[in-house]
Amino acid sequence: MSTFGNIFRVTTYGESHCKSVGCIVDGCPPGMELTEADIQPQLSRRRPGQSKLSTPRNEKDQVHIQSGTEYGKTLGTPIGMLVHNEDHRPHDYSEMDLYPRPSHADYTYIQKYGVKSASGGGRSSARETIGRVAAGAIAEKILAKANGVEIVAFVSSIGEVAMDRNPQNEVFQNVLNTITRDQVDDVGPVRCPDASVREEMVKVIEKYRDAKDSIGGVVTCVIRNCPIGLGEPCFDKLEATLAHAMMSLPATKGFEFGSGFNGTKIPGSAHNDAFHFCDDSQRLRTKTNNSGGVQGGISNGENIYFSVAFKSAATISQEQPTATYEGKDGVLAAKGRHDPSVTPRAVPIVESMAALVLVDQLLMQKAREYGRSIVA
Amino acid sequence: MSTFGNIFRVTTYGESHCKSVGCIVDGCPPGMELTEADIQPQLSRRRPGQSKLSTPRNEKDQVHIQSGTEYGKTLGTPIGMLVHNEDHRPHDYSEMDLYPRPSHADYTYIQKYGVKSASGGGRSSARETIGRVAAGAIAEKILAKANGVEIVAFVSSIGEVAMDRNPQNEVFQNVLNTITRDQVDDVGPVRCPDASVREEMVKVIEKYRDAKDSIGGVVTCVIRNCPIGLGEPCFDKLEATLAHAMMSLPATKGFEFGSGFNGTKIPGSAHNDAFHFCDDSQRLRTKTNNSGGVQGGISNGENIYFSVAFKSAATISQEQPTATYEGKDGVLAAKGRHDPSVTPRAVPIVESMAALVLVDQLLMQKAREYGRSIVA
Amino acid sequence: MSTFGNIFRVTTYGESHCKSVGCIVDGCPPGMELTEADIQPQLSRRRPGQSKLSTPRNEKDQVHIQSGTEYGKTLGTPIGMLVHNEDHRPHDYSEMDLYPRPSHADYTYIQKYGVKSASGGGRSSARETIGRVAAGAIAEKILAKANGVEIVAFVSSIGEVAMDRNPQNEVFQNVLNTITRDQVDDVGPVRCPDASVREEMVKVIEKYRDAKDSIGGVVTCVIRNCPIGLGEPCFDKLEATLAHAMMSLPATKGFEFGSGFNGTKIPGSAHNDAFHFCDDSQRLRTKTNNSGGVQGGISNGENIYFSVAFKSAATISQEQPTATYEGKDGVLAAKGRHDPSVTPRAVPIVESMAALVLVDQLLMQKAREYGRSIVA
Amino acid sequence: MSTFGNIFRVTTYGESHCKSVGCIVDGCPPGMELTEADIQPQLSRRRPGQSKLSTPRNEKDQVHIQSGTEYGKTLGTPIGMLVHNEDHRPHDYSEMDLYPRPSHADYTYIQKYGVKSASGGGRSSARETIGRVAAGAIAEKILAKANGVEIVAFVSSIGEVAMDRNPQNEVFQNVLNTITRDQVDDVGPVRCPDASVREEMVKVIEKYRDAKDSIGGVVTCVIRNCPIGLGEPCFDKLEATLAHAMMSLPATKGFEFGSGFNGTKIPGSAHNDAFHFCDDSQRLRTKTNNSGGVQGGISNGENIYFSVAFKSAATISQEQPTATYEGKDGVLAAKGRHDPSVTPRAVPIVESMAALVLVDQLLMQKAREYGRSIVA
Repeated sequence: MSTFGNIFRVTTYGESHCKSVGCIVDGCPPGMELTEADIQPQLSRRRPGQSKLSTPRNEKDQVHIQSGTEYGKTLGTPIGMLVHNEDHRPHDYSEMDLYPRPSHADYTYIQKYGVKSASGGGRSSARETIGRVAAGAIAEKILAKANGVEIVAFVSSIGEVAMDRNPQNEVFQNVLNTITRDQVDDVGPVRCPDASVREEMVKVIEKYRDAKDSIGGVVTCVIRNCPIGLGEPCFDKLEATLAHAMMSLPATKGFEFGSGFNGTKIPGSAHNDAFHFCDDSQRLRTKTNNSGGVQGGISNGENIYFSVAFKSAATISQEQPTATYEGKDGVLAAKGRHDPSVTPRAVPIVESMAALVLVDQLLMQKAREYGRSIVA
Repeated sequence: MSTFGNIFRVTTYGESHCKSVGCIVDGCPPGMELTEADIQPQLSRRRPGQSKLSTPRNEKDQVHIQSGTEYGKTLGTPIGMLVHNEDHRPHDYSEMDLYPRPSHADYTYIQKYGVKSASGGGRSSARETIGRVAAGAIAEKILAKANGVEIVAFVSSIGEVAMDRNPQNEVFQNVLNTITRDQVDDVGPVRCPDASVREEMVKVIEKYRDAKDSIGGVVTCVIRNCPIGLGEPCFDKLEATLAHAMMSLPATKGFEFGSGFNGTKIPGSAHNDAFHFCDDSQRLRTKTNNSGGVQGGISNGENIYFSVAFKSAATISQEQPTATYEGKDGVLAAKGRHDPSVTPRAVPIVESMAALVLVDQLLMQKAREYGRSIVA
Repeated sequence: MSTFGNIFRVTTYGESHCKSVGCIVDGCPPGMELTEADIQPQLSRRRPGQSKLSTPRNEKDQVHIQSGTEYGKTLGTPIGMLVHNEDHRPHDYSEMDLYPRPSHADYTYIQKYGVKSASGGGRSSARETIGRVAAGAIAEKILAKANGVEIVAFVSSIGEVAMDRNPQNEVFQNVLNTITRDQVDDVGPVRCPDASVREEMVKVIEKYRDAKDSIGGVVTCVIRNCPIGLGEPCFDKLEATLAHAMMSLPATKGFEFGSGFNGTKIPGSAHNDAFHFCDDSQRLRTKTNNSGGVQGGISNGENIYFSVAFKSAATISQEQPTATYEGKDGVLAAKGRHDPSVTPRAVPIVESMAALVLVDQLLMQKAREYGRSIVA
Repeated sequence: MSTFGNIFRVTTYGESHCKSVGCIVDGCPPGMELTEADIQPQLSRRRPGQSKLSTPRNEKDQVHIQSGTEYGKTLGTPIGMLVHNEDHRPHDYSEMDLYPRPSHADYTYIQKYGVKSASGGGRSSARETIGRVAAGAIAEKILAKANGVEIVAFVSSIGEVAMDRNPQNEVFQNVLNTITRDQVDDVGPVRCPDASVREEMVKVIEKYRDAKDSIGGVVTCVIRNCPIGLGEPCFDKLEATLAHAMMSLPATKGFEFGSGFNGTKIPGSAHNDAFHFCDDSQRLRTKTNNSGGVQGGISNGENIYFSVAFKSAATISQEQPTATYEGKDGVLAAKGRHDPSVTPRAVPIVESMAALVLVDQLLMQKAREYGRSIVA
């Protein structure tokens, strides 16, 4: 379905060629200052066309709040938001109509729905993520007020060029501890904070762009200052809901939490995060953080970090031998120029989904804490 | 919460030292033959103590159906099931009480709940998975009847020793296409179907066992004969709900779908799965399957496959320098012998969760297909 | 929360003085013809200002579909819809600001949310029901195609003037069996199909209008051609979800299903609906229908009927002694003219909520039927 | 489905002739003292066989906690509970098998599920309510600790013999303000606190018992000390969720909230509950309480009260002309003696469902209040 969250919920609508895309955010606390200016920055960060590395299309993507605020403050009622689609002509790609685009959603949509929309795989369009990002911006504002929660995502690999994401790596740890969104954006469109690999990443993207091809990458995200105790044991572990959120993004192929797949190779004696008493925070902390800030599905107060794999974009300008819906062999070539690497644009989307997961779990936990406080 | 699924739902209860663990399965179709004999095999497959490679504890884990069947057939009503805990003494580990076990859930549970249960991190216990497996066995039976769906999981890596999971690798493809549960079990407790790495895996496990240490691994799962059209676009993409399900299992650190993290390195031109008309199935198929059987969140009829990373078990017999709840430095050693590699035991649990995801999406899709059939 | 339904879901947003009110309908089958013309009629039926009996305000309430359709057909994706608020000035009732309107939601909203919106009890505004009606119109179209389901509501009492709703009453039975929406509307704004009480109802409304007072009433609704087998046993019985839906409407104070409160007075021997074989429909039918078309929470194929009590409107033009938020005694009088009886306007809203309940249960049941078909 | 609630949830299983009936309570706060002794009293209150007015069957209904507590305190984990069915022979009513019992769920169950269970309409059995009552007992304990919430239900009518439930009636008001469960039970099995009608009620029940017939009644419930602010606007208004809960009970035909159907006859000027400043509670209160303690779907701190109509029991000992499943006319007579009035036994079940609604809304509201506290 198109709804995410339990207590703090977003429901989205819209595809590429309809009148608008948008969402309803339900469960936002009342009395919070909120205008379009709080939401637009993340929407703008997800727009294509910010640099020569990405596609030249320029979508304006101005958000319009429809309800739920008055005099610049939230009412506690659902916040309707929408962004007009500039191009809502049904469409004009005549050649594409014969071919389901390989590794796109055209084929599965027509199988599932029996109708072909102008945008092919309707809701699998990247424009669907606009509603998520708008909602995420609200979630972030709450989280910041709740506990100074900071969520920052960045590109950690492009193709074969990768930061060392080993939890013990000092550069990686330093990035997790200190990176800001401004820093991520300031280093250029590739959004990788590690100078030692960044230039090479740019070159890789340029190479695939020139070859009318595409290349994937990994986005890593850190959440700092997450309160202790978030996450429901069993099915709704914090990492499980984060995995759900991330793997619901278009083009994702993998999710790693904390030590990730590498954590399968480190023996327990080294992987276990020993406790020590931290004088600064006056509580138990762990010396290492292979766990990624979560144990038994529940946040432990350390940095939460995870990585999301984005496959190489399916839409490429070069010709691809494939078949038509009718099963006739042929060659498909997408018109126009296409983004050789969508990974950097995924950065604010990953942050937004993380915020949606966290605010929902935060509010849930506060209900739990209240319950605990009155029965003991 | 302790409920998973929308139309076909399981709700579980129980921790290590209570009277019983169990579940309620809601939404099982009526009229299906079902007795304990359908459920016990998977429960037995998840039991520890089947071999010298795993822990010598022998839990009987006999399931008892409480409701929802009569004369060996389902009624369509909720199926209550329980497995008695043999050991439901509150507990006797006095030393452990002072120490939160590193990378276990003891610390986060006490932070979240304020009470310490005999089993430390209460629901994070492996016994919690019994309810999942019992429910999964029912789900599998439905799926088999629906479309001959086959779900088989196996160990694909232990520590550094790994099968080549590249989708283009012929051995891997062959395993995905043909592997059966019997074959997985017949090769011995390590449950890896690839003879070229299996012996080495056993040695790795023995090495860590002898060192009173533990080592992680990866479980890969294939779903064959999945109907086309399963998965809800947007938030409940098939891979997103599978990721949620898998990352809700204890000790998981990562999830890969189809080409996974490797898919970030293959250019779009090679990663795209070209269509062709398949004479055998008389429909479009893809020549490759980097997508893992899902495009745009919706199944396309190809094999669905994914991998789940299990970290090295947190409980080890060797001494670990850590701190008490009070913050005093000290040394913790778990009593008794402990399973050096829990990964092989995760095999039926992964299969069960996959079945729960699939049956729920299947029933949902059939509601959708009905709707489509009447309005067009 | 602002979401209703499980498989077919509506999420609404908006209050009286924001930019627009609207909804997202999720789960609509693809391939159905759908334009604004399918939705507008019910929206217009709920508009105030259709006659001298109701308030003279004239809201245009034109619905605008934002997404989910193309070339006049549904895509299967979420349908965003909105209706612009003509008056979205924050507001200008200065005197009202001091007083929580008695039996309105002003006081509870400020207690719950801590903010006072221009419309006082924000979402308790009647404009919130626009989203429900727009969604209901879509639901109805599906139901009509599914089984020729007909949903017709009408006014069965105004103040003390009431139709005899006894299931054995012949006039009442005849109305349940044959009434159409056109007939309900054709008899004038009071929307009561029973000529023997209609004129008196009009007089009662005029009397209260002239007295600057208000009067309540009852809306009865019949659902014909409901498929057998709808409704989930236990918590989501068909009558329970209908009750939920109806009692979520503003100003409702009661719900009766089938024989209702009167059914507590008829002995079992007379209340029981005896079965007989019906030659016309070639199946078991019941001779009487005290059950209201549902037994054990599941539809039995007979007419479903229920009644909803709407209290006398809280907003009246006459002065009311009450107190300010600060606790000072005083007198409140609403400005302008107010609808003396909102009950007739509730007719399409009741129909819409009934349709939303039914379509969700229908799709759920079709998933269940599929399950049953494959396992037996 | 068989799950009720969002944050505090109960999932039930079981029918008349299976091994046990029970439930899983999810979301109970940790650290609360809880043993079977907290749950048994309400279970015993719902048991048949307490007096000559009700059926002589004596079910022991001892509850067994399976999980979620340790050393008599809750762990915060799911609480599994079960009650063994003494009679779990499949069944022996051979004659009944041919006839769907009129106004029972036999016919609809076989239509929906295609299988006939020993108990006919499987989950529509009164034994299904055991799980609700066990869960409700836990909910009540939390509510009592939260705000001294008191929930007391009683019989307000049997057949034509009724208390005056007019909100202005002094006896009724007095009952709402002061009645206790002990008082309800002490007046004898009819559970009506109004001495002026009680004896007549007993006579009515005896009359129908002697006639091998049955008679219905109304249960009224009051909730005192409900915190202000509970209830979600729009779809999950407090009265809507209460209506859902009550109408999900077997044999219910109606629900009235506050002034109920009578509220449709009282003009707005008299129905409106004027505010005044209450010196005792140092806040605004209402002079009257036609609203039933809720305005705009949100509790206002006054007594919440509502009434539930229970139809005359469908199972009667006298012969009933009806038809077999095959459509052959015939006569059905239930064997054994049957309860002539189940209404008094519904008292604890109504209380339990009210508690389940309230605790869920309470916890939800506390999450909302936290949100509000941090963003303002």
